[in-house]
Amino acid sequence: MLYFNNDYSEGCHPRILERLSLTNFEQTPGYGMDGYCLRAAALIKKLCNNEMLDVHFLVGGTQTNLTVIASVLRPHQGVIGAESAHIEVHESGSIEATGHKVLTLPSADGKITAAQVEECVTAHYDNEAAEHMVQPGMVYISNPTELGTLYSLEELRELSAVCRKHGLYLFMDGARLGYGLMAQGNDVTMEDIARLCDAFYIGGTKGGALFGEAVVFANAMISRDFRYLIKQRGGMLAKGRLLGLQFSTLLEDGLYFELAKHANAQADKIRATLDELGYSYLVPGVTNQIFPIFPNAVVEALRHDFCFNIQQKIDDGHTAVRFCTSWATEAKNVDVLCEKLRELSK
Amino acid sequence: MLYFNNDYSEGCHPRILERLSLTNFEQTPGYGMDGYCLRAAALIKKLCNNEMLDVHFLVGGTQTNLTVIASVLRPHQGVIGAESAHIEVHESGSIEATGHKVLTLPSADGKITAAQVEECVTAHYDNEAAEHMVQPGMVYISNPTELGTLYSLEELRELSAVCRKHGLYLFMDGARLGYGLMAQGNDVTMEDIARLCDAFYIGGTKGGALFGEAVVFANAMISRDFRYLIKQRGGMLAKGRLLGLQFSTLLEDGLYFELAKHANAQADKIRATLDELGYSYLVPGVTNQIFPIFPNAVVEALRHDFCFNIQQKIDDGHTAVRFCTSWATEAKNVDVLCEKLRELSK
Amino acid sequence: MLYFNNDYSEGCHPRILERLSLTNFEQTPGYGMDGYCLRAAALIKKLCNNEMLDVHFLVGGTQTNLTVIASVLRPHQGVIGAESAHIEVHESGSIEATGHKVLTLPSADGKITAAQVEECVTAHYDNEAAEHMVQPGMVYISNPTELGTLYSLEELRELSAVCRKHGLYLFMDGARLGYGLMAQGNDVTMEDIARLCDAFYIGGTKGGALFGEAVVFANAMISRDFRYLIKQRGGMLAKGRLLGLQFSTLLEDGLYFELAKHANAQADKIRATLDELGYSYLVPGVTNQIFPIFPNAVVEALRHDFCFNIQQKIDDGHTAVRFCTSWATEAKNVDVLCEKLRELSK
Amino acid sequence: MLYFNNDYSEGCHPRILERLSLTNFEQTPGYGMDGYCLRAAALIKKLCNNEMLDVHFLVGGTQTNLTVIASVLRPHQGVIGAESAHIEVHESGSIEATGHKVLTLPSADGKITAAQVEECVTAHYDNEAAEHMVQPGMVYISNPTELGTLYSLEELRELSAVCRKHGLYLFMDGARLGYGLMAQGNDVTMEDIARLCDAFYIGGTKGGALFGEAVVFANAMISRDFRYLIKQRGGMLAKGRLLGLQFSTLLEDGLYFELAKHANAQADKIRATLDELGYSYLVPGVTNQIFPIFPNAVVEALRHDFCFNIQQKIDDGHTAVRFCTSWATEAKNVDVLCEKLRELSK
Repeated sequence: MLYFNNDYSEGCHPRILERLSLTNFEQTPGYGMDGYCLRAAALIKKLCNNEMLDVHFLVGGTQTNLTVIASVLRPHQGVIGAESAHIEVHESGSIEATGHKVLTLPSADGKITAAQVEECVTAHYDNEAAEHMVQPGMVYISNPTELGTLYSLEELRELSAVCRKHGLYLFMDGARLGYGLMAQGNDVTMEDIARLCDAFYIGGTKGGALFGEAVVFANAMISRDFRYLIKQRGGMLAKGRLLGLQFSTLLEDGLYFELAKHANAQADKIRATLDELGYSYLVPGVTNQIFPIFPNAVVEALRHDFCFNIQQKIDDGHTAVRFCTSWATEAKNVDVLCEKLRELSK
Repeated sequence: MLYFNNDYSEGCHPRILERLSLTNFEQTPGYGMDGYCLRAAALIKKLCNNEMLDVHFLVGGTQTNLTVIASVLRPHQGVIGAESAHIEVHESGSIEATGHKVLTLPSADGKITAAQVEECVTAHYDNEAAEHMVQPGMVYISNPTELGTLYSLEELRELSAVCRKHGLYLFMDGARLGYGLMAQGNDVTMEDIARLCDAFYIGGTKGGALFGEAVVFANAMISRDFRYLIKQRGGMLAKGRLLGLQFSTLLEDGLYFELAKHANAQADKIRATLDELGYSYLVPGVTNQIFPIFPNAVVEALRHDFCFNIQQKIDDGHTAVRFCTSWATEAKNVDVLCEKLRELSK
Repeated sequence: MLYFNNDYSEGCHPRILERLSLTNFEQTPGYGMDGYCLRAAALIKKLCNNEMLDVHFLVGGTQTNLTVIASVLRPHQGVIGAESAHIEVHESGSIEATGHKVLTLPSADGKITAAQVEECVTAHYDNEAAEHMVQPGMVYISNPTELGTLYSLEELRELSAVCRKHGLYLFMDGARLGYGLMAQGNDVTMEDIARLCDAFYIGGTKGGALFGEAVVFANAMISRDFRYLIKQRGGMLAKGRLLGLQFSTLLEDGLYFELAKHANAQADKIRATLDELGYSYLVPGVTNQIFPIFPNAVVEALRHDFCFNIQQKIDDGHTAVRFCTSWATEAKNVDVLCEKLRELSK
Repeated sequence: MLYFNNDYSEGCHPRILERLSLTNFEQTPGYGMDGYCLRAAALIKKLCNNEMLDVHFLVGGTQTNLTVIASVLRPHQGVIGAESAHIEVHESGSIEATGHKVLTLPSADGKITAAQVEECVTAHYDNEAAEHMVQPGMVYISNPTELGTLYSLEELRELSAVCRKHGLYLFMDGARLGYGLMAQGNDVTMEDIARLCDAFYIGGTKGGALFGEAVVFANAMISRDFRYLIKQRGGMLAKGRLLGLQFSTLLEDGLYFELAKHANAQADKIRATLDELGYSYLVPGVTNQIFPIFPNAVVEALRHDFCFNIQQKIDDGHTAVRFCTSWATEAKNVDVLCEKLRELSK
């Protein structure tokens, strides 16, 4: 069985395990106050070319989303997101459990636009009964999105502008950020993101680490007392060194980006094969996620040897699926998949 | 200015004020443990023909909704409702503030169907990632709905059946229950509701009381420790007698239903005039809410003398509005409105 | 049976019922946007001699406490209060249900001191593990306290100063405020309270209204978006007029203070009798609550004719009880009680 | 600088890192559904001699406490614990953030007794205003406690009995469970704990793992839908294999218990030296935590070379400190500490 079902099936890049072994008996302060975390934070500030940033390390994505959102919203505020947003669909109500509503906007490709946000906010304040409704307080986007799509720099600029105009925070979920930054056609940099968002995170779990997400706030006013929040929500790792060391290893010489580039290249090979075979896509993509539409018979045939996700039913005869490559995907396995796809199309 | 904008513009039926005056210096236990509350609860049990019911009195609708829902759901559960449900749209995120998500279903007329619920619940459990999603735990309906529509007995039976099949609670928001029960064509009784729902409430605020909602649970297992919840959520009125006395007055000889009948009759007169003038409706209605579609010029002209709600824009030239009659609506004011409507249609 | 068990056994001052009757069919905007609420707010600003105040009306005390506290604290902050504070002991965990801890300070008389607050806050920030603990964000006091004691102007000034020094909000629960302001020896005015606290409320429920608490914020920055919060927590009364009218009636010509004076005078008569009979007190008092210590036999004998509270066991032979007078307490009933006390001491 | 300040300064036992390396490229299902987690759960069931247990793996202790407690309590219920309980003092209000109050009992040694619980619960239900107070729903104990003390089997039996009598859950925080089970004089077994508690956890973070806590529920009724809760609260690790593998490694041949025994032996050496030098203790101990009382001059002198905690001031001249050994403490470092202690006592 070959796994193309997600980007967290394996462990981590071997260099991380080596470093963990090398440093295993070092005694460090706990809870993220160690030198490795400081070093990783410094690397991130440098990559973003901004010394004002405030960086924290958490263990996982849902934890990061709920902690950031609960930290900045007031009780009557909600967070605007795409109807397919991870926080809306796949976090078991984690945001609501902190007391906040997710205000959803329709989206075919996982993205939301500045115009949609403008309309949503304007509609709220134009409503006589505004005080009887949830006040928009933040915009949540993921980049890449759940559907593997990317925001352009222009789109990000517009979202940032509309958020600043209306006093909303802009928060980017970067669980797969590396895959986005390394994608063909991407014109957004870490520096852009740090400048245009109020908060974002750099995903480690899906990008070559054992686990870990690096949250970056535009400044320490926005993240005031964030460490209390991390602790309160159960996200403060006792041995914080593990997070600092992983991000240091991934970021000090570009490993994080190389790994993402590798994954994207594997996905490009699959896309090339699908294009060659004439398949269409639920959503066109450039990152490590691919959403082809197959006849059901092809889906069934593939399931014998490959593990992948059913995304959605298209019609009685067709289904959109998801293949996911990762930093760990081996080229030879991609070849096996492509070969099988060709065979099934004969 | 004549008010047709809601059913809570005035005070209460004079008989209630008389009773309040008569009993003003009686000394009673606080917090709903007085004889008036006991008597009102007994009247409700009798109207529902069910001695097993557990009855509580709260002050307002949002308070009632959030307290009931927070009382019965576990933290990972959400409440299914129409996309237009009051708890989704007009309660400032009160349900989310207790930690729970509102799971919305599309609805053109404010109602949801057993088939929709079945599909929603089945889709949840069929999903491999079900544990990453909010678990349906309750179905919330309002009757009449936000759009003045009514559930038939058959529809209620089906909803009740699908809820029992899947272990969901069925909760009916009866903020305007009287108007529904007295509407032409309604085939649902209090007894039916008490048998088919796990919880519902009888709205006093919009039905002739100064304030107050009577929550009815199918039995005391469902409402276990509910008084702690009422207190915790700030809904326990110190002078609970005020609630008991109001509901006793409204229910002991049918006043509640007479008042609703009066309001519906006034609405029927308006509907007859609108029909006569050839206007169409956003949603056809039989209760005290009317949603006609007017040319914008008519809307503007009406606004000089009448207070009513803009419901939604239909197209560039037309708007759906809401007129609301109540237990207190005077026939002469309805005549003025009907006259004006005729005049504007000439 | 004569009731001395609380100050909310009866209805309200008759003038309120008269006004409710007179205005019953007026049509007003809902949710506290009516002229009566505006007028009551203006009266309060005038009594406090401060036009910057922001005034809101809620139905009950627990509701008011939880809404104010949830509105101003961030998620990791707690509210400091006496171990006997109403929010700690008698609100079914309402504050915790909004996500916040009550940080208690020992108190024999229901009051807390500026020195205690200073020590608590300093200890927090001096602790290496401060981020692992709840951050003090507000100080909650009640005046009169649960034990009927009063803060002096000097004590209030010191509390205010320590709060401002450390960036804490100071919130006064004034459920029985009138009884405090009218007590012998009190040197605090409404103007003082409005100047020294960030928020406080004027209790209507226990002071002559049917229900209602008037929340006063020092300015509209502190109470930003408070109406969303009121709605979200279920505290927004549809017929807000009822609240505005009651507070207008109580405050426009000093009725509120007269009623409190009456209650205190009745309590003073009881205290005089107790002093004369040589009883001691759990806590000495000047307001409408009296906490004498009786031999158990006296307690038992009194229970046949009077309703009052057992406060706490003192030793095997003695018990502290609570008598409570109110705006509605009749002098003749107080005479009966005093007579009985004398009889039992023979 | 030698660290005796906690038991999570280093990484993990080397065998774990070896296994992580060996299995690094295995592809496994995510979120704890992998074979390693299954195997670890099976090992735990076997150690407890109970196939009915339901086992889950989370990352950290605060996360585990808040998720377990929020899962089983109803909204109006609180959790009883010692005033020094970790959930009360050192989790930044995590329990309150899920809506629940911690009901504290006085405790000099970190333990609470069945008699205290009985009294607390009885006092609650005997109170006329019980519904205005937080209902006890669970008892939380830690074993060893925050002060390193242990519950005897008899004490646990009594706590279990009082909880079952009153319908409370009994939950044991076992962050340092291994150190307790291996302590001299301990008479409690894993089997006892699994039989007497409704839930407990086996601490990995402080016991030789990189991180991880294994939660054990007495049966799957108590933990119904617990995986939704883990996900919702941000505690579900994507690469759950990491947890399963660590616990398998620690438990399959007794490594977990050997490591604890080692730590206790190191602590015993320190205790022997302290006894020899005539120091007294804040609390006598048998596990890996030691709380000696030193003259302040000794404390100051020790701080040059050793990292340890100030526990509390005893008087102007004396301070209680905490030394903590761990699975990783080297005997030679203990010797250095003991030597220094002797030197300072000359």
